[in-house]
Amino acid sequence: MSGINKTTEKHLMVFSGRAHPQLAQEVSAALGTDLVPTSAYDFANGEIYVRYEESVRGSDAFVIQSHTAPINEWIMEQLIMIDALKRASAKRITVVLPFYGYARQDKKHRGREPISARLMADLFKTAGADRLMAIDLHTAQIQGFFDGPVDHLMAMPILADYVGKKYGHLDLAVVSPDAGRIKVAEDWSSRLGGAPLAFIHKTRDINRPNEVVANRVVGEIKGRTCVLVDDMIDTAGTITKAADALMDQGAASVIIAATHAILSGPAVDRLKACKVEEVIVTNTLPIPDDRRFDKLEVLSIAPLVSMAIREVFEDGSVTSLFDGKA
Amino acid sequence: MSGINKTTEKHLMVFSGRAHPQLAQEVSAALGTDLVPTSAYDFANGEIYVRYEESVRGSDAFVIQSHTAPINEWIMEQLIMIDALKRASAKRITVVLPFYGYARQDKKHRGREPISARLMADLFKTAGADRLMAIDLHTAQIQGFFDGPVDHLMAMPILADYVGKKYGHLDLAVVSPDAGRIKVAEDWSSRLGGAPLAFIHKTRDINRPNEVVANRVVGEIKGRTCVLVDDMIDTAGTITKAADALMDQGAASVIIAATHAILSGPAVDRLKACKVEEVIVTNTLPIPDDRRFDKLEVLSIAPLVSMAIREVFEDGSVTSLFDGKA
Amino acid sequence: MSGINKTTEKHLMVFSGRAHPQLAQEVSAALGTDLVPTSAYDFANGEIYVRYEESVRGSDAFVIQSHTAPINEWIMEQLIMIDALKRASAKRITVVLPFYGYARQDKKHRGREPISARLMADLFKTAGADRLMAIDLHTAQIQGFFDGPVDHLMAMPILADYVGKKYGHLDLAVVSPDAGRIKVAEDWSSRLGGAPLAFIHKTRDINRPNEVVANRVVGEIKGRTCVLVDDMIDTAGTITKAADALMDQGAASVIIAATHAILSGPAVDRLKACKVEEVIVTNTLPIPDDRRFDKLEVLSIAPLVSMAIREVFEDGSVTSLFDGKA
Amino acid sequence: MSGINKTTEKHLMVFSGRAHPQLAQEVSAALGTDLVPTSAYDFANGEIYVRYEESVRGSDAFVIQSHTAPINEWIMEQLIMIDALKRASAKRITVVLPFYGYARQDKKHRGREPISARLMADLFKTAGADRLMAIDLHTAQIQGFFDGPVDHLMAMPILADYVGKKYGHLDLAVVSPDAGRIKVAEDWSSRLGGAPLAFIHKTRDINRPNEVVANRVVGEIKGRTCVLVDDMIDTAGTITKAADALMDQGAASVIIAATHAILSGPAVDRLKACKVEEVIVTNTLPIPDDRRFDKLEVLSIAPLVSMAIREVFEDGSVTSLFDGKA
Amino acid sequence: MSGINKTTEKHLMVFSGRAHPQLAQEVSAALGTDLVPTSAYDFANGEIYVRYEESVRGSDAFVIQSHTAPINEWIMEQLIMIDALKRASAKRITVVLPFYGYARQDKKHRGREPISARLMADLFKTAGADRLMAIDLHTAQIQGFFDGPVDHLMAMPILADYVGKKYGHLDLAVVSPDAGRIKVAEDWSSRLGGAPLAFIHKTRDINRPNEVVANRVVGEIKGRTCVLVDDMIDTAGTITKAADALMDQGAASVIIAATHAILSGPAVDRLKACKVEEVIVTNTLPIPDDRRFDKLEVLSIAPLVSMAIREVFEDGSVTSLFDGKA
Amino acid sequence: MSGINKTTEKHLMVFSGRAHPQLAQEVSAALGTDLVPTSAYDFANGEIYVRYEESVRGSDAFVIQSHTAPINEWIMEQLIMIDALKRASAKRITVVLPFYGYARQDKKHRGREPISARLMADLFKTAGADRLMAIDLHTAQIQGFFDGPVDHLMAMPILADYVGKKYGHLDLAVVSPDAGRIKVAEDWSSRLGGAPLAFIHKTRDINRPNEVVANRVVGEIKGRTCVLVDDMIDTAGTITKAADALMDQGAASVIIAATHAILSGPAVDRLKACKVEEVIVTNTLPIPDDRRFDKLEVLSIAPLVSMAIREVFEDGSVTSLFDGKA
Repeated sequence: MSGINKTTEKHLMVFSGRAHPQLAQEVSAALGTDLVPTSAYDFANGEIYVRYEESVRGSDAFVIQSHTAPINEWIMEQLIMIDALKRASAKRITVVLPFYGYARQDKKHRGREPISARLMADLFKTAGADRLMAIDLHTAQIQGFFDGPVDHLMAMPILADYVGKKYGHLDLAVVSPDAGRIKVAEDWSSRLGGAPLAFIHKTRDINRPNEVVANRVVGEIKGRTCVLVDDMIDTAGTITKAADALMDQGAASVIIAATHAILSGPAVDRLKACKVEEVIVTNTLPIPDDRRFDKLEVLSIAPLVSMAIREVFEDGSVTSLFDGKA
Repeated sequence: MSGINKTTEKHLMVFSGRAHPQLAQEVSAALGTDLVPTSAYDFANGEIYVRYEESVRGSDAFVIQSHTAPINEWIMEQLIMIDALKRASAKRITVVLPFYGYARQDKKHRGREPISARLMADLFKTAGADRLMAIDLHTAQIQGFFDGPVDHLMAMPILADYVGKKYGHLDLAVVSPDAGRIKVAEDWSSRLGGAPLAFIHKTRDINRPNEVVANRVVGEIKGRTCVLVDDMIDTAGTITKAADALMDQGAASVIIAATHAILSGPAVDRLKACKVEEVIVTNTLPIPDDRRFDKLEVLSIAPLVSMAIREVFEDGSVTSLFDGKA
Repeated sequence: MSGINKTTEKHLMVFSGRAHPQLAQEVSAALGTDLVPTSAYDFANGEIYVRYEESVRGSDAFVIQSHTAPINEWIMEQLIMIDALKRASAKRITVVLPFYGYARQDKKHRGREPISARLMADLFKTAGADRLMAIDLHTAQIQGFFDGPVDHLMAMPILADYVGKKYGHLDLAVVSPDAGRIKVAEDWSSRLGGAPLAFIHKTRDINRPNEVVANRVVGEIKGRTCVLVDDMIDTAGTITKAADALMDQGAASVIIAATHAILSGPAVDRLKACKVEEVIVTNTLPIPDDRRFDKLEVLSIAPLVSMAIREVFEDGSVTSLFDGKA
Repeated sequence: MSGINKTTEKHLMVFSGRAHPQLAQEVSAALGTDLVPTSAYDFANGEIYVRYEESVRGSDAFVIQSHTAPINEWIMEQLIMIDALKRASAKRITVVLPFYGYARQDKKHRGREPISARLMADLFKTAGADRLMAIDLHTAQIQGFFDGPVDHLMAMPILADYVGKKYGHLDLAVVSPDAGRIKVAEDWSSRLGGAPLAFIHKTRDINRPNEVVANRVVGEIKGRTCVLVDDMIDTAGTITKAADALMDQGAASVIIAATHAILSGPAVDRLKACKVEEVIVTNTLPIPDDRRFDKLEVLSIAPLVSMAIREVFEDGSVTSLFDGKA
Repeated sequence: MSGINKTTEKHLMVFSGRAHPQLAQEVSAALGTDLVPTSAYDFANGEIYVRYEESVRGSDAFVIQSHTAPINEWIMEQLIMIDALKRASAKRITVVLPFYGYARQDKKHRGREPISARLMADLFKTAGADRLMAIDLHTAQIQGFFDGPVDHLMAMPILADYVGKKYGHLDLAVVSPDAGRIKVAEDWSSRLGGAPLAFIHKTRDINRPNEVVANRVVGEIKGRTCVLVDDMIDTAGTITKAADALMDQGAASVIIAATHAILSGPAVDRLKACKVEEVIVTNTLPIPDDRRFDKLEVLSIAPLVSMAIREVFEDGSVTSLFDGKA
Repeated sequence: MSGINKTTEKHLMVFSGRAHPQLAQEVSAALGTDLVPTSAYDFANGEIYVRYEESVRGSDAFVIQSHTAPINEWIMEQLIMIDALKRASAKRITVVLPFYGYARQDKKHRGREPISARLMADLFKTAGADRLMAIDLHTAQIQGFFDGPVDHLMAMPILADYVGKKYGHLDLAVVSPDAGRIKVAEDWSSRLGGAPLAFIHKTRDINRPNEVVANRVVGEIKGRTCVLVDDMIDTAGTITKAADALMDQGAASVIIAATHAILSGPAVDRLKACKVEEVIVTNTLPIPDDRRFDKLEVLSIAPLVSMAIREVFEDGSVTSLFDGKA
């Protein structure tokens, strides 16, 4: 037969945008390799330039970018990185999104809105993404926005195990800061051995519907250490008000646990000011030193991400990382 | 200039599959037209045949099919109807889904599952659908599964207004049968003037995680008329257990309200047997006479659907049907 | 250079839906492996649930489903299986269709009909199919309905060799039951050493065009053992009338050979009643015991399918299985 | 409300490539308009240049090109014309294919062949075609190769009515030149009041399978005027041998009828030489004067095409042009 | 016939992002309508929110956004605006790009670079754009990056006519600042009645290839008023060095003309400092007051854009705006 | 775990169309393998038939075709070859285009023109191409017309090194035959150690704009050996007039260098007649003996193409072939 034969090798390469290089370095170190050397800078008018310093032909590429501020800049950089990989003949491109930008715009709350979370999935696909890897998506349905495999990693076990070890001897309650996220609280409750559930119901005045009148606590939390759980802390308004309401209603203490530490604008001041004992987050997003404070505990998700990348590269099972959950 | 000019006319046509022709007839009657005469039957081996008896060329076609049992049969019939419309040069095809099948499989609950709700959206697109119209989707994110416009109609106001008129003078509480759907209950609470919220927390034995130990009511419901709300009633297991738990915990009475009356298997017996005062549903799905019972009230969504179709046809605003919600 | 290298392994996995597990088991046994353990069941309202019990990441997946009754149910199950494979990172998905549903609707016989056979190809593509494998398609043009490779296997040699061995010493004629399928009969004739051809011409009364007046035999069959050939036997109406016409016109005897034994409704009674010596089919479709009868011979296509799967997996030649025909 | 309103007008425009301008002129004249003035020429290296001399923005464009020799040149010109229309903002593009090139390569006859007829459909789609219009496709399944509406026009009634008027008083038989096209002959037989059917069976020597030993006539044709029917006449080898075989077997006379007069290479000489009374074709392809001969009758399909274009433009029914057949 | 008829109206609506509202207002005013009222703001973490305050159903939408700094923010806003329009059932979406971001990355200058200009076209398509309208693209080939109609408007005639009126009585030369853009200069030369051409050749030392040794003027410019032309002025480094080189070589005076006034970083200082008489640009990009200076003349392209939008809306000819050039 | 494992092998196969088999043979010989035996011929009406004589399943296929006259025929053949490879399960298909047809129609020069170069890229994609490889594209932007990797090879170094060796001791000038291609000349100038640049400016009479009045040389060429460079020589009109103008203006001598030797119509006569010393081209296109002449030097690009194919097959770096340029 005509032709030339050769055994196929696959070649894992890890790439990082400029949004959160520390995390990417931690991930690649855990994998035992270096990040691919990459030139990336802004032109005078803000256009981004990207070029890889090594051949990426045939690679199994993982492109890590956290969607932190300036968020549109970093998303665009990741799209451009994917385009460059596609055109340079990478074999498979997995987009790693420690924090998936625009995840909260996952539906039309009112008419004539975008569904930006779906749009992001489509933009990545168009640029050349074959697969996504994400952590604690705002809603699990976002997996369905991408037309292809999505590895949905769970940081909750990391957070919950930390809480369990440190506070498990106390009388706990798991509390959701609003009605929409009790499902997450329920998962926490299971993981913490069946702690009782509660949530905060924002009541409104019928004559002024846009104004919250009171944060009513629904569920039994008196005398308990309340674990206030959410997927992300943005301006921390809702969650600190929830913490205060819990303390007002007789909680023994409050700790806050969330995967994504956006910590925008007044978040740090609010968290410092509110009567919460500890704020536990992960490093899916960069937290500069001036946004860190005494009560803040940052757990690393790099071990989780690197294990998942290895399983994907070696055709292992990501599901098994979560005891059957993915 | 070369050529021939002609003023463009648009032509609304309404089509129905065989799943729930009564609803489609009600909708087209409200619009002031007839359903397009259609041949549809099964071949001996179960393959479906469809043909339209009138020219559909250039039409603005609305294809109504409720995804009732045998559900795969009716979905396939609708796909085939869309294909026939596309190939017969319909100008625009809107798929009307009073009940969207497979909506509950809207994410991977565990690894190696499908996301069938996304798959359905893709199948409709592939067959030729330009637009979807659906009612009370299981989760609003499903709008984002379709790559095109989705008119998401809300039956909740119809149900809530009925409840408000009949039970509004009583002390109400709005109750979600599980943690995942409190958001819906919260919308009901707003519509009913701020009634308090509660939900049922299924607790599990740590040694037997697949077994529900108890249905704990979280929230204040003592002495209140509880409105148990959900988007659908399938086997009615969860919701009737919830109703019983509410009565056990001192509720004054319980009424159940849900948009989609699937009423599979033991549902009717369970609803009859449980201590609920009234079960209020809509006719998004056909309810045969032998599944109807005294406590069941069926409200029609045909006026809503026909109004929405008219707005879509005339380039009006569907959002305005919901006071800015769609 | 940055990164990690690894030799690529490919991993063949065989999956079966619930339509015809015996055939899938026979195929996987011939390959020397087991079917992948799979959970598949119907929810109360008929929605299908599927989950794989093993990791399928990186696999070269073959998904076998025969489109038997309830045909829409089994097609939908196969689509859902493909979606689950795609989202679980299978590397390549080959859809194995021993009997391709809706193959007869391969064109518009009249205006405003669907082309369901094309629709099926598009649905499989959309769900995630990379390749199709099918046996004796109703028309070979269906290969062109799929945008990708189609391995078109031929069961005719299996059937013809059986006929040749058993009846080759007799004076044979090959007969097509209608004008549209004489090409198939011609292939049989070649395979059987040049046996003469005939076909049945259904004549109609000019005043009653939908009514067949007579089954006229065109060609010489007097005194010959007639092999009536077709791709499928559905209700067996046409083929048994053809058999009777042949005997009326002086055939020595009649045997029927067809690949796909749908055997709907009255088929078995008709075949038993008609003056045919033997009915030879394959097991592309399941034939329950109560549809089997003395004159029925069922040949297995599992060896053919397993050989083809092995060639596809090993990048061999499927064409060579047919001496240059595929 | 913001914005500017205007009644929508649609604008029919007819375009012709350089392959067969006479037909396109006849069609546009029947519609009562002119062809759009178009510059089209070849550069020195054979690259084709096309530009429209009038604005085509918003037009309902019909692009007529017959796939005559040099066939690849004319297909490419049509693709380029479509691209230019798409980029110039034509609203809808209907590709009119009096003769659909590569229609005979509608399946893989052997492994590792293309399916060029599907490829052509995809190329037209890619260039920007919304719809196809074709006449007497080689196989009706080709409709399913295009992902969109196909108007399949039938020239057979035009030919059959001519034959009926001129020869209907004689004892007719309808004959297919090979086994694969008896279905077409059967349609002719119906149209001609139930004339008996026959076909030519090419028998082969078992030791020399590529060689035709004899053209055996299957069916009764003795003393009859045989109407030999096919969709196209290319080199006329098969059909003239069939005609001779019919005369040898005692036919009273033979006439040939076919829609597409390709008339390649030796076709004209063979047709002149063979014992056929009349050869009836249409002008779907250009027939230069030096390929015309006494026995050749050319019927125009321009009236049919222009009627179909008018129905498509006016959202009428093309199906009705064929009494329910399309 | 079933159904309801209605004359079709089309409805022009103009939308503006937040990048350059003055231009959009000028355009819509010229059209005689208002911009559609739109809510657009940034969330705390930089995610953009957009919602239209009026129904856009069925509209012929034109979405104007200039890609000025922060450029990625404004591109993303425009993508989100398009998504919202698509999902709100706009009929046709034309993306108006007075300055097309990333146009300079229109090819791979070296291996492993992106082609960001193509990526942008694909992102707009994915979000839902049907058509693009752009002004003086960096290279005309970018039209081919979009799979659909592109209206390419030319600002050069506006600039050239201004130059012609003011300086036409002098001895002019048209000069390109580098070898790659002489084609543009040639167009200017034609428009200005055949003024001689020149360009600046950057010579490099063979031993230090990244360093420009000298700006050699190629062509005759002695004693002439040199019109230095380019499509954009970014940091103004190249063009001011070119101006100086021209004066050094004996030019009588130098004026600079360019369509897009990016004016990044040191641009304004450089332009003020260099020996140029006048700098003529358009308002495709916003020029804040602190970037304006005495020698700067800003011509408006709003009349051109509004005329083009009207032609597109009314199915007129955009080509005719340029005497046969588009 | 279920299934069968196997080490993956990749298999390089090289295919050639009928346009320029000598080049393909030279390339495959350099790779150390044979061209895959292929049947390819024209049917009587010009339709092309292609079939591979060996299994191509799983192959890494490179399909070489030069777009020489009859150009549409050869493009179509290549499209059909790709379709056959796709349907025969080739794993990856790289289209090798030594000369990319229609590259000059890479933009709309005027309204209502096609962008044929983009159309070609789309046609190849649709047929099944995964990647393109091309040499000296008319404009580098054409890389962006293809949605996937494009390996853009440079023949310029081959030509320039030949010129350098033979003429490097002389006083050189690099000249572009028109204003649009000076960028190419600039690259040559760098490669030749900084030779001065010039170009030919075609001036026109203001009253007869389509007529070139004079070929004005812009730049210093007196007494120098002028290297007239272009990407292709088609009819040689422009370039021979440029050569004459150079000699008229005092050039010492002129040599012409171009990658693609189309040599249409009068090209050879013109080149022979003009006062040029040597014409240096490559064999990207076939040059039949009767088009060769004394002054013509043909350099082979086969070594370049075969090296690039090897790098692509082995996941090496094509960029490195050009010292960082690709």
